[in-house]
Amino acid sequence: MYQIVSATVGDVGLSAMRESTPPKKKRVDRHGRRLMVATLLGVVLVTAAVAAWSYYSTSLRKADLLKTELLDLNKDGFVIHNQAGAVIFQMTFRSDSLDLDSCLKEGRVLTCSRSSAGSLNFFIETVKPKDTVMCYRVRWEELETSRAVEHAMAYHGSHWYGGGETRSQHWPIVFHGSQEPEPFITGDVGSKQRVFGNILERYWLSSNATAIKINDSVPFHLGWDENSKMMRFQARYENSPYKADRGRPVRAELSYRVCVGHDVGSIHKYMVRRYFNKPSKVPSEAAFRQPIWSTWAFFKTAVNQDKLLTYASEIQTHGFNWSHLDLDDQYTSGYGEFDFDPVKFPNASHMFKKLGDDGFKFTLWTHPFVNYNSTNFGTGVERGLFVREPSGELPALIRWWNGIGSILDFTNPETRDWYALHLRNLKNEYGIASFKFDAGETSYLPQQFSTFVPLQDPSMFTRRYTEMAIPFNDRAELRAGYQSQNISCFFRITDRNSLWGYDLGLKSIIPTVLTVSILGYQFVLPDVIGGNAYPDYTDGEKGFPDRELYIRWLELSAFMPVMQFSIPPWVYNNEVVEIARKFTALHETLVAPRVLKLAGEVLNTGDPIIRPLWWIATDDEAAYKIDSQFLIGDELMVAPVLEPGKQERDIYLPAGKWRSYKSEHFDKGPMHLTDYPVDLDEIAYFVRSA
Amino acid sequence: MYQIVSATVGDVGLSAMRESTPPKKKRVDRHGRRLMVATLLGVVLVTAAVAAWSYYSTSLRKADLLKTELLDLNKDGFVIHNQAGAVIFQMTFRSDSLDLDSCLKEGRVLTCSRSSAGSLNFFIETVKPKDTVMCYRVRWEELETSRAVEHAMAYHGSHWYGGGETRSQHWPIVFHGSQEPEPFITGDVGSKQRVFGNILERYWLSSNATAIKINDSVPFHLGWDENSKMMRFQARYENSPYKADRGRPVRAELSYRVCVGHDVGSIHKYMVRRYFNKPSKVPSEAAFRQPIWSTWAFFKTAVNQDKLLTYASEIQTHGFNWSHLDLDDQYTSGYGEFDFDPVKFPNASHMFKKLGDDGFKFTLWTHPFVNYNSTNFGTGVERGLFVREPSGELPALIRWWNGIGSILDFTNPETRDWYALHLRNLKNEYGIASFKFDAGETSYLPQQFSTFVPLQDPSMFTRRYTEMAIPFNDRAELRAGYQSQNISCFFRITDRNSLWGYDLGLKSIIPTVLTVSILGYQFVLPDVIGGNAYPDYTDGEKGFPDRELYIRWLELSAFMPVMQFSIPPWVYNNEVVEIARKFTALHETLVAPRVLKLAGEVLNTGDPIIRPLWWIATDDEAAYKIDSQFLIGDELMVAPVLEPGKQERDIYLPAGKWRSYKSEHFDKGPMHLTDYPVDLDEIAYFVRSA
Repeated sequence: MYQIVSATVGDVGLSAMRESTPPKKKRVDRHGRRLMVATLLGVVLVTAAVAAWSYYSTSLRKADLLKTELLDLNKDGFVIHNQAGAVIFQMTFRSDSLDLDSCLKEGRVLTCSRSSAGSLNFFIETVKPKDTVMCYRVRWEELETSRAVEHAMAYHGSHWYGGGETRSQHWPIVFHGSQEPEPFITGDVGSKQRVFGNILERYWLSSNATAIKINDSVPFHLGWDENSKMMRFQARYENSPYKADRGRPVRAELSYRVCVGHDVGSIHKYMVRRYFNKPSKVPSEAAFRQPIWSTWAFFKTAVNQDKLLTYASEIQTHGFNWSHLDLDDQYTSGYGEFDFDPVKFPNASHMFKKLGDDGFKFTLWTHPFVNYNSTNFGTGVERGLFVREPSGELPALIRWWNGIGSILDFTNPETRDWYALHLRNLKNEYGIASFKFDAGETSYLPQQFSTFVPLQDPSMFTRRYTEMAIPFNDRAELRAGYQSQNISCFFRITDRNSLWGYDLGLKSIIPTVLTVSILGYQFVLPDVIGGNAYPDYTDGEKGFPDRELYIRWLELSAFMPVMQFSIPPWVYNNEVVEIARKFTALHETLVAPRVLKLAGEVLNTGDPIIRPLWWIATDDEAAYKIDSQFLIGDELMVAPVLEPGKQERDIYLPAGKWRSYKSEHFDKGPMHLTDYPVDLDEIAYFVRSA
Repeated sequence: MYQIVSATVGDVGLSAMRESTPPKKKRVDRHGRRLMVATLLGVVLVTAAVAAWSYYSTSLRKADLLKTELLDLNKDGFVIHNQAGAVIFQMTFRSDSLDLDSCLKEGRVLTCSRSSAGSLNFFIETVKPKDTVMCYRVRWEELETSRAVEHAMAYHGSHWYGGGETRSQHWPIVFHGSQEPEPFITGDVGSKQRVFGNILERYWLSSNATAIKINDSVPFHLGWDENSKMMRFQARYENSPYKADRGRPVRAELSYRVCVGHDVGSIHKYMVRRYFNKPSKVPSEAAFRQPIWSTWAFFKTAVNQDKLLTYASEIQTHGFNWSHLDLDDQYTSGYGEFDFDPVKFPNASHMFKKLGDDGFKFTLWTHPFVNYNSTNFGTGVERGLFVREPSGELPALIRWWNGIGSILDFTNPETRDWYALHLRNLKNEYGIASFKFDAGETSYLPQQFSTFVPLQDPSMFTRRYTEMAIPFNDRAELRAGYQSQNISCFFRITDRNSLWGYDLGLKSIIPTVLTVSILGYQFVLPDVIGGNAYPDYTDGEKGFPDRELYIRWLELSAFMPVMQFSIPPWVYNNEVVEIARKFTALHETLVAPRVLKLAGEVLNTGDPIIRPLWWIATDDEAAYKIDSQFLIGDELMVAPVLEPGKQERDIYLPAGKWRSYKSEHFDKGPMHLTDYPVDLDEIAYFVRSA
């Protein structure tokens, strides 16, 4: 069209010029006038045509430019399609919109240099690391403001997993109400309502085979809104514990990568292999086979030498075996001390010798706190071992569940040496096997603080603390983690309450274990059987968990990587003791060998031991929503009873051939088994045949 | 003029209209044209005239409006003239300039509603409280920004006094270099370089009979600049320990009043009577007559029962008398405790009984700190007695010269009761007369903090602390003060070094005592004779002050309201003991009666006991600059030797009839006596005859 119009213009022009040397004036005059009119008309037409074409072609270029692989960018956000053209990911720019005229595309990189607010450094880089995976690296850095940058991810239309532990844990994630963006840093969900998890990673995975990983350098805040069904990803420094790197301008930068794969399993495997640390060794085989027995829930802080001796003796007399015993809170006189309280443990050396001769091993409870009234507080103050107030001059006081004190600054090499020395001394003097490292979350740091080595991301404090467990990692237990997947220790999900429900109760265990597994923590402790029997959070009488709850909890625990007892079965009756013996035996014979084999694979793959049903059923919508069943590896599927008073439950069997623990065969799956009978002393499990 | 022009316009218009119904067309046409031209011309003239008149009259009104009494306002500041037309005060608006078109004057109030940055609440109100005094209340409140407000006062052309103690104290004030505005809050100038004084008020007085008082509500920061010769008065909340009142917008407001009088003495008297608190009683007469003996400089923290007994005994055997003895630092085991260290004071009760029988009275050293390793730290933590970190949840730690601990929160009634109870118990159990309340400056507060009752002005902490002395005020000693003039106690100038110079040495005493006197603190202790003998700040051998320095210091102290010994004269030789006896006697017979009479007048007037020479010589430029002489009342003039190796000095005698201590008569003043001889055991003083 353009060329045709252009040729006409040329003709008109040329003929006009040719005829401008006329033979007769009058004819020329009349003819000339007509030509002039025609010429003018032509020019107008041409101009219009050129303008239209330019606009059209610019639009074409722009439209082309704003596509990169399966991602479409517009001024207010971007969407990613799958091969079939359906939208599988949607991100909205909330803090500002792009000036699309400032965008350029060069190869795999699409950049924009202006937002509606000013200069900006924006890019989306496309990376195709393998045939089945496409990743989009996104970075938004405002150059002229120190404002927050916020992108909001639509979470509707698919199921999401990951992030971290929460107080009310669901699988997939459930977003309640709306939440302004808060620092996404480790926090003790067991003691505080509105914090993110004890174990936490900046990673989410969706059922439509997309995953998002927020970059480590981002001062990352998370919020959500139930109405708009958006997760709000915000980068900011204002009113935030994140600190900009010294010497760098305080400009919030939001950067992340979104990867898309063929299915949820393969994209997760790609992300784990690419972005997560992996452990280098499998911790104690014994702990995977035999239960750990903790003094905590049973004795609380009233533990003493006699009680511990009796406990050990009763474990033996009731015919149980053990990996080790955990001597928990208050074996010292003060918090922050490392000597046995001489009143409660008049002869600790002799006690450990005697118990050691009987085949018992021990872990000791430890924590990062030194209370102001402990003998080591002065040492910490004078030697600068503590986290300090913001000016860095003086220690800051903090409150934790056992009082007021300071928190050891594990960014300080002198603190690390001092702490490690004390732990080594305990280990050597009493033959202690290892330690239970309690706490470590940033929610126990002062509201404002400074550390020996400045922390841009406060959660790095958690990482530093978890590193203290490395020398003791055969049986060490941690309950907080951030980028800590390579600490080859057991990670315990945070303290459970002795309740049936999702609020840290029995129902929360599977969602929580699945979540931390998705975050790369595979040597998971599901916390003590029956929960911690905290007075205000216990379904049951006499301070003990409800008997039925205890039994159901025991059954579930038997199918977890490690069993942990504290309230012993013999506080109920002999029937409970027998059920417990049955399930510790089942754990050792059926579960442990599978878990140990999978644990070995973790070192190479980072893949979960405890897996969600969709792991083997990625095309199965039903599988994405099930939070009361799980897989051990790909073959053993477990469906515990988690409701009080029930001796049956509905069970979903994914496609495949399954043999039940009652030796029934099912091969017409996927299928629902409704009201499948499960006696009180039973747990439903199914083994898949190849 | 306006009306005349207006009438002409009317005529032209009317005649044109009348003639617009013409008898003949042609004539009308020609005549009409001429009329039209004339009319147009007239309109143009009229418009121009009206515009000119409006402009002229507006200017007249504006010029009138921007004068209020002897103050001329312009967009960048204001000046105040004296009756003779000379500029005696000049203030520059540094943060912003006024939009003069927004200004209005109604009666005695001149208001402006816009600055070049936006809306504003500005006024200058003129108040003439008495015939000889004119005050200007100035208030600048930005309505649209939370920026700092800054006004800069020219300090050249006159001499300025007031403000507070400084580390290098001069009289009149000397501004060195340039200083960005810093919070004008109490600070220990003895331990920190860049703080404002232990005793501090927002008041300055100038030799040309102007005074400025910054309002209490202002978040006040002071800076200066030697080049432009400006004091910078800034109101701000950002990067500042001042806190806006809860529920009020965080808008910095700078308000102050400038008062002008006939002479410096009368304007100062007006300001003191109007704006300063006054004490309600005169403290211990004995302390004005006989010296206080402190253990501090002599024994430091090594004081113990034997040493104290020996010290008391030596005071007696050397023939000295005493008001009381001050048992200073470290009679307790820990800082924050109130029991005598049983090792250092094995029998404190018996010791005080015995010394009491010998006629000794005692004050005990106390302070607002509780060290972390004292037995009372836990009490303070658990009962919430301490100043806290900003969130208010936990105590904050602070560092002071005796270690690390917390600081008692005297805004908390429970803390006040607890502290007062301990002091009362000491008083009752040991027959203690009173206490030396050390510290109390805001520079010992945490960098960021919160108190039980929020403090908008951190210096109110000092005020609250000084109130603790009220029940013990007969002999109580304080060294920090803010709006504390009504605490009827002795106020000590901060610790002196055993040096000759201005840096807390001998030469600093007169400027400092004059300064705190101008600030309304009249029961002044000039600190211990010879200074504190701090190792790094001592001119002298064996750790004692230089003998000559000690003697000159002794002589000066004899003419101060109270004498304080610590290093005793007998550490030198008998000659020094004899000089000391001579001067303690002179103090008791010559000085004390005058001081006590003046002290009684303070309750009514607030006027200084120790006065600058200009007090009786307001027309005498020389009198404004003299910092090595002073008056006791209006009749006794003192001129101590303050230079090493000198047995003579220049002395300025103001107008009047003077009789020297050598009974010479001088009545041709004002005059300079050059190289006036003063032996080592003498101090020059002159008595004025009526």
